[in-house]
Amino acid sequence: MQLPSCYLFQGLPNSKIDRIRSIGREKHFQKGKWLFYEGQAASNLYLLNSGAVELLTKLDLEEAIELPIAIVRSEAGCFGIGTLVPPYLYSLSARCAADSSLLLIKHVDIQNLISSDPILGCTIMTNLAKKLLDRLKETRQTSKIHFKTLVRYATF
Amino acid sequence: MQLPSCYLFQGLPNSKIDRIRSIGREKHFQKGKWLFYEGQAASNLYLLNSGAVELLTKLDLEEAIELPIAIVRSEAGCFGIGTLVPPYLYSLSARCAADSSLLLIKHVDIQNLISSDPILGCTIMTNLAKKLLDRLKETRQTSKIHFKTLVRYATF
Repeated sequence: MQLPSCYLFQGLPNSKIDRIRSIGREKHFQKGKWLFYEGQAASNLYLLNSGAVELLTKLDLEEAIELPIAIVRSEAGCFGIGTLVPPYLYSLSARCAADSSLLLIKHVDIQNLISSDPILGCTIMTNLAKKLLDRLKETRQTSKIHFKTLVRYATF
Repeated sequence: MQLPSCYLFQGLPNSKIDRIRSIGREKHFQKGKWLFYEGQAASNLYLLNSGAVELLTKLDLEEAIELPIAIVRSEAGCFGIGTLVPPYLYSLSARCAADSSLLLIKHVDIQNLISSDPILGCTIMTNLAKKLLDRLKETRQTSKIHFKTLVRYATF
């Protein structure tokens, strides 16, 4: 398992990455399996060992239309960041896009590790903030494109 | 100055907030003054003492259309978070919407403080990640509304 390639652990020494790995448990899921739903309490941080997982959101709570946000494909990609950020809820839903092998780290275990090792915690949270800022810029860019398309519709 | 109300410092004891305050310098700016532009190296974290500051982005690099993102109004609101996240660039532009009094903390000084006090660093970065995740959800919501409007235009 190539844990170092998970963006959350960038800059951590191998000894600390091994410590994180040691508190997880491996599980296998079939294609199509829902791992969690948007708005649920975030009970696990997930590290992708093999397979693929879709992250998505509903267009509207009442509607059935799903908007794909990302597909986690690379080995040791990670998701379930709701375990790291108050109020500790999943911000997206996750469904296996292929048979997948995942390492699950319980919310309470990753939080205990961060509390006991603030240097590790600070590194993980800085990596997370960087990722979220990048995603925010991408989402703003998409919003700009939609806005420009709307302006075009309204004009012609 | 009510520094505790800045979201980045939530959960820090007053002694640590005083330490952060002590490394900043107060400056006054007139309404209309540009503080920084999107994409520039993030040289300062700003804490709002009084006044108001607009955060905005251009619709397109070549175009003059500005999209407002937020107005920082409350006492001790903060912006310039590019100082906290690699590659340390401002992700938005900032312009004074009123005569404003600001506390400027140099990038190097806030980074030194975080390195020397990882518990403080972990708290600040967790608060930042929470804020960014909230903004990401809001921006996705806006994107959904634009998308639904486009679907309506395309259908009828």
